[in-house]
Amino acid sequence: MGSADDTNPPAENYGGTSHRAAIPPPQPFVKSLKNTLKETFFPDDPLRQFKNQSPGRRLALGLQYFFPILEWGPRYTWQFFKSDLISGITIASLAIPQGISYAKLANLPPVLGLYSSFVPPLIYAVMGSSRDLAVGTVAVGSLLMASMLGEVVNPLEDPTLYLHLAFTATFFAGLFEVGLGFLRLGFIVDFLSHATIVGFMGGAATVVSLQQLKGVLGLDQFTHATDIISVMRSVFSQTNKWRWESAVLGCVFLFYLLLSRYFSKKKPKLFWISAMAPLTSVILGSVLVYLTHAEKHGVQVIGHLKKGINPPSIMHLNFDSKYLTTAIKTGIVTGIISLAEGIAVGRSFAMFKHYHIDGNKEMIAIGMMNMVGSCTSCYLTTGPFSRSAVNFNAGCKTAVSNIVMAIAVMITLLLLTPLFHYTPLVVLSSIIIAAMLGLIDYDAAIHLWHVDKFDFLVCMSAYVGVVFASIEVGLVMAVGLSVLRLLLFVARPRTFVLGNVPDSKVFRSVDQYQNARSVPGILILEIDAPIYFANSNYLRERISRWIDDEEDRVKSSGETDLKYIILDMSAVGNIDTSGISMLDEVMKIVDRRGLKLALANPGAEVMKKLNKSKFLERMGQEWIFLTAEDAVGACNYMLHSCKPKMDSDVLEKYSNNV
Amino acid sequence: MGSADDTNPPAENYGGTSHRAAIPPPQPFVKSLKNTLKETFFPDDPLRQFKNQSPGRRLALGLQYFFPILEWGPRYTWQFFKSDLISGITIASLAIPQGISYAKLANLPPVLGLYSSFVPPLIYAVMGSSRDLAVGTVAVGSLLMASMLGEVVNPLEDPTLYLHLAFTATFFAGLFEVGLGFLRLGFIVDFLSHATIVGFMGGAATVVSLQQLKGVLGLDQFTHATDIISVMRSVFSQTNKWRWESAVLGCVFLFYLLLSRYFSKKKPKLFWISAMAPLTSVILGSVLVYLTHAEKHGVQVIGHLKKGINPPSIMHLNFDSKYLTTAIKTGIVTGIISLAEGIAVGRSFAMFKHYHIDGNKEMIAIGMMNMVGSCTSCYLTTGPFSRSAVNFNAGCKTAVSNIVMAIAVMITLLLLTPLFHYTPLVVLSSIIIAAMLGLIDYDAAIHLWHVDKFDFLVCMSAYVGVVFASIEVGLVMAVGLSVLRLLLFVARPRTFVLGNVPDSKVFRSVDQYQNARSVPGILILEIDAPIYFANSNYLRERISRWIDDEEDRVKSSGETDLKYIILDMSAVGNIDTSGISMLDEVMKIVDRRGLKLALANPGAEVMKKLNKSKFLERMGQEWIFLTAEDAVGACNYMLHSCKPKMDSDVLEKYSNNV
Repeated sequence: MGSADDTNPPAENYGGTSHRAAIPPPQPFVKSLKNTLKETFFPDDPLRQFKNQSPGRRLALGLQYFFPILEWGPRYTWQFFKSDLISGITIASLAIPQGISYAKLANLPPVLGLYSSFVPPLIYAVMGSSRDLAVGTVAVGSLLMASMLGEVVNPLEDPTLYLHLAFTATFFAGLFEVGLGFLRLGFIVDFLSHATIVGFMGGAATVVSLQQLKGVLGLDQFTHATDIISVMRSVFSQTNKWRWESAVLGCVFLFYLLLSRYFSKKKPKLFWISAMAPLTSVILGSVLVYLTHAEKHGVQVIGHLKKGINPPSIMHLNFDSKYLTTAIKTGIVTGIISLAEGIAVGRSFAMFKHYHIDGNKEMIAIGMMNMVGSCTSCYLTTGPFSRSAVNFNAGCKTAVSNIVMAIAVMITLLLLTPLFHYTPLVVLSSIIIAAMLGLIDYDAAIHLWHVDKFDFLVCMSAYVGVVFASIEVGLVMAVGLSVLRLLLFVARPRTFVLGNVPDSKVFRSVDQYQNARSVPGILILEIDAPIYFANSNYLRERISRWIDDEEDRVKSSGETDLKYIILDMSAVGNIDTSGISMLDEVMKIVDRRGLKLALANPGAEVMKKLNKSKFLERMGQEWIFLTAEDAVGACNYMLHSCKPKMDSDVLEKYSNNV
Repeated sequence: MGSADDTNPPAENYGGTSHRAAIPPPQPFVKSLKNTLKETFFPDDPLRQFKNQSPGRRLALGLQYFFPILEWGPRYTWQFFKSDLISGITIASLAIPQGISYAKLANLPPVLGLYSSFVPPLIYAVMGSSRDLAVGTVAVGSLLMASMLGEVVNPLEDPTLYLHLAFTATFFAGLFEVGLGFLRLGFIVDFLSHATIVGFMGGAATVVSLQQLKGVLGLDQFTHATDIISVMRSVFSQTNKWRWESAVLGCVFLFYLLLSRYFSKKKPKLFWISAMAPLTSVILGSVLVYLTHAEKHGVQVIGHLKKGINPPSIMHLNFDSKYLTTAIKTGIVTGIISLAEGIAVGRSFAMFKHYHIDGNKEMIAIGMMNMVGSCTSCYLTTGPFSRSAVNFNAGCKTAVSNIVMAIAVMITLLLLTPLFHYTPLVVLSSIIIAAMLGLIDYDAAIHLWHVDKFDFLVCMSAYVGVVFASIEVGLVMAVGLSVLRLLLFVARPRTFVLGNVPDSKVFRSVDQYQNARSVPGILILEIDAPIYFANSNYLRERISRWIDDEEDRVKSSGETDLKYIILDMSAVGNIDTSGISMLDEVMKIVDRRGLKLALANPGAEVMKKLNKSKFLERMGQEWIFLTAEDAVGACNYMLHSCKPKMDSDVLEKYSNNV
């Protein structure tokens, strides 16, 4: 181990290793490009598991990759099935009224809503990676489809053409989603941060609960908007139409559901009471209505449904050039929206249960269910928040609950439509409200406030955006703020003055280590972000200001004059050509003031670029050190030696021979 | 200085300092918010120079801040004036034909183009911070204004209303620009990187040169589009209308201009030949046409112009609510576009001459000249690329060239309009082409390719975007790519394996320092970006993969089993709540594999948040070290001591008592 301690007294405290900051060995352009692309698009290294495997095993693993059911299926237990059965039946009982009302929103035949809860859930169960997502149609997607297709075809005048275009748009939505998945753009979901999801969940739960006021109050007319202001106006503008029978029934069932959950929480052994509660509510409610004929006294029921399962619709896909642009445009817009909701919902519940969702697999699964759906008389489906929340709340364990729901819907379509005739809508509303109330996570929001104010701001903007505007506005606001934070991190990097931590050779920020002492005559600055175009002007100004401040301080305190500026580059991950120009300018500024600049510990990428741009030559390679310690040692030696002027030979010698 | 070397043999090579990573002292929320806002919006600390100054001096400095002419004016020399006079007259000779043709594009009376080269340049000369920007109207802004206002008023049917709305839109454009400047959003210009500007300049020079084919070939009809395909189609679709007289004249003058520049470069003393060349060309060309009556043989000339300077138009601003939305919308859109062009152009020439532009001052200056302009019969102005390039090329030194141009235009408007009657348009085209050819910077592009491939890609996308689509498309593509790079830096941070540099206590990336040796049983990883939502999933995967790889390697080579994972956090500038969850998960993953996680050198922000989120408690604070060296020392001690299992008491003792 090299030690300067004995031979160079002035450097005693700082002299240390005798190494140079290395320029990494050159790499062929193609190889480094390949590496970058691999890290960007295949960070999970999906082919890794195929290494050193027999062809049969490889096939099995490949199938498991595309069909996660093959992976978790063999481990499936009877215990799981009991949970999935209950939750599957519960969401099936929700799927029927929801499907009908959303299909009406989309100006499509009501039975399409049921069809859409049969085929797509089966596809998702096989291909999806979420355990909690319940598949079905969504309000926003239905509304969007109605408004976009409605611009070219009037659903009342030509319902057949309109129907066929809806299938076509669904097909393109699926194709687009699958395409995103295959292009490995699943990392887009990473931009939904923890904070965004907390806010989004709370906001969505609030909004969906408010929507249920329609069912609870037994209203016929209701706004299609989801923001709190429209909903409240809609509710209070028709106080004369409130039905007390419906409201009483709703409150009773809500109380029952919340009570059962409370007991389950108190005594975990009684969890099945809470899990069974939604289904028993549906049965009880239906029986009650049937016996009392409450449907004639203001309690709305599901009513009559046609029998028979999905007819094929592949021959109805319409690729006529006259409508193709509209179909593609509708497909892309609704595809993005439904993907955003589906993935945000999947990710939210995964976060709750501490497992992970593969964005690429999800995109492919959601896309495939739309593509297959469009050929089997279904329209746009995704993972709606309300249904997934009920699924989660009813205790689902795996995607088998989707299969149960699909089978239940199928049986309903084939045989049981009469049984659901008397199910009161208000019971379904109570189930949804009860599920929602558990999802507003105050504690998480308070935790965010304590740990990270900016994350709290992101969370609140998601909540406020969803509640006062719409789900998309909330998501866009939160994601926009989060991205702004990333950009600000780079655009306004922090710079620290470093000092020597007493009794050590270590240099650390004097803000963090209050006892760190600055070295007379030397200013050590650390930059904690890559030096890019976005911050090079800022850094130039900031470094000048640090030097000004230090010179003012030295002047007023009468200490040794400032002679050296050391930039510690440990945290500078990369540099671009604007950044190199900035360093050139800083070097000139420093020279003009009669000071000298040194760099400490530039990383591999930085060294490579400083070398290629000849900055190393312009600066003099002897001014670049392996550590801040070495740089301070050398500068100190120069300061205290007889030569007040820097002499590169001495530096060179110092750095190599100690 | 603490040393473990004697008492703890196993840690011999790594034992060192005995300090803890410090949690920075808590700061009140309001104070840290204030600091952040200050660094974000006032990085240049504009109030700094006012400190410790007398009130009179403060006033002077304040005035200098808003009126840069007060700062550079006193240093102005006769030498500068000679250069500015020549360049000012040169751009004035350009301003007349350009102003007329752009006003026609905007469906406004031609004389408005001249008015707009009189008042706004005077304002800019006083308030602007660029030395090379020549003020005037631009093609894109003129076209946009015509199309946006044309939607509500037909300029042929109601020219007066249309004119008044144009003034109103210009007023709002100015107001918006000034607003951006006062909100300190000037840092937006930082997003125009070095690479973007090289590509943008080359592209704009190509496009503007191609536009001059209209003048050189003496064509009457020409496309308003700027992309190369439209221009080429326009040129070659009317080969029968090419005028050889015009083309010959154009080539002769172009040759003269290029030759004079060549000589000036060879013999710097003859610089004035090059500087005078454009003006002498205008005079020579006009005399030639006057004598030969070439205007009757296919050489287009400027022709007749009305006399008199700008009438006031402040009473014509129309705030009628019927048109207000359109006026505001037009103002904002054209304001942004003209700001983008003006600032990109100013920044480009500043880069050439190595000085700096203050984005906030520029926004205020450009905004003020539009606000004042709208009250004095001018429409939207900014710093057009072609005119500024000619200004630069003619050797301008300061904004005085704008004053000279304004006075020349004023004299022209008052007296000299007849003199410009015979100026041939083709000479003006030659002057522009000659100026452009000097601005395509091949060398800079090649340099970008060598130093930074991504910067080269940004540069090329700006060039291709400008040439094949439009200036805005080029700028948006280049800025979009640049921002994507910032996001990718954070979304896909690099992680390195560190090793011990021989004969030192330093740990560095084994990729960069080929001789660095890994420590048996310990894997040291460095993360070189902040840990945010955008990368927390990636990092979790990547760290698991590093561990997998290391365990595979160890297994196949029969080395000591992996026991410790050390994360070096030196380069992790910040962390958010998603990042903290990620660390929790990594800790679990590592525990599940029977390994132990340690952190080295977390920074101030990171320590603060790890502390607030109780991560430090969950992890055990004794596992957090000041340096990688300390962490390795402690782990090594555990590995080699009799206790194969970790014992936090021992660690605690080790870290504190050595």
